[in-house]
Amino acid sequence: MEYTIRKAQKADAKQIFELIVELAVFEKEPGEIEINYHDIIFSGFKKNPDFKCFVAEEKSNIIGIALVYNRFSTWKGKILHLEDLIVSEKFRGNGVGSALFDTVVQYASKIGVKRVSWEVLNWNNSAIKFYESKGAEIKKDWNVVHLNELGIKNYLLKISK
Amino acid sequence: MEYTIRKAQKADAKQIFELIVELAVFEKEPGEIEINYHDIIFSGFKKNPDFKCFVAEEKSNIIGIALVYNRFSTWKGKILHLEDLIVSEKFRGNGVGSALFDTVVQYASKIGVKRVSWEVLNWNNSAIKFYESKGAEIKKDWNVVHLNELGIKNYLLKISK
Repeated sequence: MEYTIRKAQKADAKQIFELIVELAVFEKEPGEIEINYHDIIFSGFKKNPDFKCFVAEEKSNIIGIALVYNRFSTWKGKILHLEDLIVSEKFRGNGVGSALFDTVVQYASKIGVKRVSWEVLNWNNSAIKFYESKGAEIKKDWNVVHLNELGIKNYLLKISK
Repeated sequence: MEYTIRKAQKADAKQIFELIVELAVFEKEPGEIEINYHDIIFSGFKKNPDFKCFVAEEKSNIIGIALVYNRFSTWKGKILHLEDLIVSEKFRGNGVGSALFDTVVQYASKIGVKRVSWEVLNWNNSAIKFYESKGAEIKKDWNVVHLNELGIKNYLLKISK
């Protein structure tokens, strides 16, 4: 299979969004998606974009993406966060995920960060195996915490009383 | 105890950094800190800063901080990430953490995000209890993953062969 890795363009937004939906279905949370492909265009392709995206393209189809942005660690300074690494299911097993991951790590090195961070579902064994094979460390003692939209609303109601 | 919550200023950088060190000691990882207070000044008080910081001040001492920045969720769009919520040990139990957290949630609402995210150590029961009392959800099925500086270096060596 022949494919190329390149920076995403505005015209890729719809296909990028389709891969985001595909992953959310796999992660059993498709109902949680509250953005659409217009948000991808707006947020990713403005001046000072909110993220940077690399795509894997095969015959003008986007078959994989790696979506990253900077964070600030109070231990390491500027770090790179890998929000999503997605390869469309029927194209897996061809090294596309590794090629995208290579690009992410090369980019991390180019911008001089001391860490690449991301999150993985603890039941996604194939992803965990993939990441560990890349030298990454699963930080099992750290939990992700969310205060969601309803939580924000309820909290503000509570403290305004 | 009387204290005020306000936005951080450049002149607070050293005391902010001291609280970061205090937390790292509590988290048993002080050796992991690779920034210093100059990085706090440089990254937090430039045009388009890498983070925003709120401080709790008591008699011109910074006794607590909440350090936040934006992230991009491919499900929710722009979200707010709480990198650190720290109250100096001897000032705990006076509501300073809650007051800082209130400010963070108010700020999240003001900028219109649909989620506040952060990370907690799974053995830090008092923090977990505090966050759950605020309506936050500990996402026990998500693990944090890191590729650190050495990992980045080794990875690039491996793929360049």
